[in-house]
Amino acid sequence: MDRISTLTNRTQLHEAILEKKSYLCVGLDPDSDKIPDCFGMGVKAMELFCKSIIDATSHVAVAYKPNLAFFELYCSEGWAALERIINHVPANCLVIADAKRGDIGNTSSKYANAIFDGLGADAITIAPYMGEDSVRPFTDRSDKWTILLALTSNKGADDFEFHGTPPLYEVVLEKSSSWGTPDNLMYVVGATRPELISRIRELVPHSFLLVPGVGAQGGDLASVAKAGLNAQCGLLVNSSRGIIYASKNPSSCEEAMNDSRAAAESMSREMAKTLCL
Amino acid sequence: MDRISTLTNRTQLHEAILEKKSYLCVGLDPDSDKIPDCFGMGVKAMELFCKSIIDATSHVAVAYKPNLAFFELYCSEGWAALERIINHVPANCLVIADAKRGDIGNTSSKYANAIFDGLGADAITIAPYMGEDSVRPFTDRSDKWTILLALTSNKGADDFEFHGTPPLYEVVLEKSSSWGTPDNLMYVVGATRPELISRIRELVPHSFLLVPGVGAQGGDLASVAKAGLNAQCGLLVNSSRGIIYASKNPSSCEEAMNDSRAAAESMSREMAKTLCL
Repeated sequence: MDRISTLTNRTQLHEAILEKKSYLCVGLDPDSDKIPDCFGMGVKAMELFCKSIIDATSHVAVAYKPNLAFFELYCSEGWAALERIINHVPANCLVIADAKRGDIGNTSSKYANAIFDGLGADAITIAPYMGEDSVRPFTDRSDKWTILLALTSNKGADDFEFHGTPPLYEVVLEKSSSWGTPDNLMYVVGATRPELISRIRELVPHSFLLVPGVGAQGGDLASVAKAGLNAQCGLLVNSSRGIIYASKNPSSCEEAMNDSRAAAESMSREMAKTLCL
Repeated sequence: MDRISTLTNRTQLHEAILEKKSYLCVGLDPDSDKIPDCFGMGVKAMELFCKSIIDATSHVAVAYKPNLAFFELYCSEGWAALERIINHVPANCLVIADAKRGDIGNTSSKYANAIFDGLGADAITIAPYMGEDSVRPFTDRSDKWTILLALTSNKGADDFEFHGTPPLYEVVLEKSSSWGTPDNLMYVVGATRPELISRIRELVPHSFLLVPGVGAQGGDLASVAKAGLNAQCGLLVNSSRGIIYASKNPSSCEEAMNDSRAAAESMSREMAKTLCL
């Protein structure tokens, strides 16, 4: 990998947010059933589509979040395409590998090498179930970001994340906050429960939160911003389907990307208002 | 993928165990620092080493468990090698992709396609944190096995898996048991806490348990067998380092594989005793 990111701590990330007046993360979930036909078929279409989305939105996006499931679907070819897509992301945007990995320490250290050094991602999402030794090999990297699942945006979050007193997601936040620093450890907190973001802000006042669930999943940006913003912004709000599939039955790739650009710009304008620049 | 497994339910798995008098799962964690020099370097060495291990042990192993971290380390080349290694596994052995995936439902369904259909694995390990909709796309496949993390063998298991009353891992077992059947859903239960395996057997009497942690991590086979065996065996006990790196400073690949074969046969003999055949 050749790409070098310039967003390796909170200060740099905050500066990029102020410069772009946006804390938008664009989720790259390239689903072959939804990529407009004009991009072609298969893994080549996926690569062209993702690169086109990056070109159309990088003036207002501070992060891109490719979800590895969509690339693993194409086996080794998908993985190779993902490497090239990551290399296509400008240095002033964060690349978040949405991988939700986590294994015993010895193995997690291999995942850290694979995703940070092999793929060249700047950040990775991690599932906390297996505890400290499964997370430390990621947070041991001061030059890379670890993004731990805390409170997810899906229905299944109710099954285990609220278990016990205090609820499991609070225990995850409290225990893990010493495994890294706010300069290399963030949390995933779903937009679909804004009433809980205020509580989470009390527990991790300085940490960035990666917030999925705005848009297609029903979360509301204004509520998230009100509850989640801190002195350094402290938020990355992700939109995937709402931006990358903004176009309905486009007649050309250009039209599709114009619609995606407009959707990203619209969302960043909403974000700019909440930042009180 | 071309490979077709013959072990798609409990009855078939039990028959294979009886035939081989063994419930051994060999963990394929090909670490470049530990692969004997005679196999060469890089991804080619990794592939040759894994295929040689399979050739040397498949008469006593009922399952192979490649951990994806070690393959992702080689990016697209590692993924391609893993496809070929999986194709090399005989049809009467289970291939468990130790991937510890789990994401929102839409995304988990992509992972299911990627690992089951793309890679050709028969089973996958899944992290339960995100709950039912993250697990269902795997258990919806009646022809494939889902292996959910319950109580892991690492030190970090203490951080979250025991949280609450009842402890989280028990809640995972109880809630998830209706998401699949004992014919397509197993659980990961570490060998390092045999006193808890008896309790787990009460909660999931009919399910197979995949038990890591025997050997290098300190678990004891006899204790695991006493607590975990059921009428259909119900156990797959994994050994990785103890078998694949059994040879210390071998003078040839042949010597290395002889030592691995001997280690696997020794473990399967111990298993045969516990099966009271």
